[in-house]
Amino acid sequence: MYGYAEHKKDLQDRLRRIEGQVRGLQRMVEEDQYCIDILTQLSSVTAALKAVGMGLLGDHVRHCVAESIERGDGEAKIEELMLAVGRLTGR
Amino acid sequence: MYGYAEHKKDLQDRLRRIEGQVRGLQRMVEEDQYCIDILTQLSSVTAALKAVGMGLLGDHVRHCVAESIERGDGEAKIEELMLAVGRLTGR
Amino acid sequence: MYGYAEHKKDLQDRLRRIEGQVRGLQRMVEEDQYCIDILTQLSSVTAALKAVGMGLLGDHVRHCVAESIERGDGEAKIEELMLAVGRLTGR
Amino acid sequence: MYGYAEHKKDLQDRLRRIEGQVRGLQRMVEEDQYCIDILTQLSSVTAALKAVGMGLLGDHVRHCVAESIERGDGEAKIEELMLAVGRLTGR
Repeated sequence: MYGYAEHKKDLQDRLRRIEGQVRGLQRMVEEDQYCIDILTQLSSVTAALKAVGMGLLGDHVRHCVAESIERGDGEAKIEELMLAVGRLTGR
Repeated sequence: MYGYAEHKKDLQDRLRRIEGQVRGLQRMVEEDQYCIDILTQLSSVTAALKAVGMGLLGDHVRHCVAESIERGDGEAKIEELMLAVGRLTGR
Repeated sequence: MYGYAEHKKDLQDRLRRIEGQVRGLQRMVEEDQYCIDILTQLSSVTAALKAVGMGLLGDHVRHCVAESIERGDGEAKIEELMLAVGRLTGR
Repeated sequence: MYGYAEHKKDLQDRLRRIEGQVRGLQRMVEEDQYCIDILTQLSSVTAALKAVGMGLLGDHVRHCVAESIERGDGEAKIEELMLAVGRLTGR
């Protein structure tokens, strides 16, 4: 069981909504909608994904990382965490 | 017809692949996979969305914005473009 | 003369303020201030730099890019612009 | 003493280098250098600031956050951490 176990339903709901938004993007392209409107929608998908990522990351720190620190064994988990944060922040 | 018209098939292919990646995220959550692995996959969806956004933006500048400038009427399009770039860059 | 010529004084004022903010970060480190407070200040320097970048980019599109399009010679400038946008957006 | 104490000299060296880079931006503007070259330099200052932020964040987790978790008192520090990560990732 991982950190997000207690938020699993909420997480799935968000991911399904994001899937719907991506299909919405396909529909907009299909209907030849205006580029800027598609980009606005795409920015909002990116923001929704980021919110999911931040939620997962918070659960991960509160559970997996915290437990490994309590066991006196946090170093590797913290290194792994920092790499994940680096990927989430881009560049 | 907008700037992305000639890349429409490629654009739809990419968006369908992103939709598949988002479903992949749901499956990972369903199967209780490790938080960090989900985050890594999520970062790669974000990167794919960003690539689509940059492609759309390039087409938009090369067509819609360039044409409005050629008509001597580029100012509003450029303002709109800069707002879209600001949204894509976050913050 | 480049696109930012008419905003040169404003641009220099902003860059001098950013330089002051970076010296402020050094002072915070020197005085052993709290990590999170330093990170908050660092995020605000990043936001100020991004604002300068967006301003430069807007001027560049309104002048250099627009003029090259009017001369019927926009393609290379647009490619260069898209690379710069890609760098500004990270990833 | 905070997490970055043992990296204080390295941190100050990096911040001084960033200060120099910001002065470099002012010089480029003063000398009317090309917009895109200034933007490239600005992107590299942003990347350097991000690297400093990631370093500070890692030290903070390894020390302040880990110690508060060991004391059984991590919740508030973790909340604060997540807000700081959110600010670093923009949007």
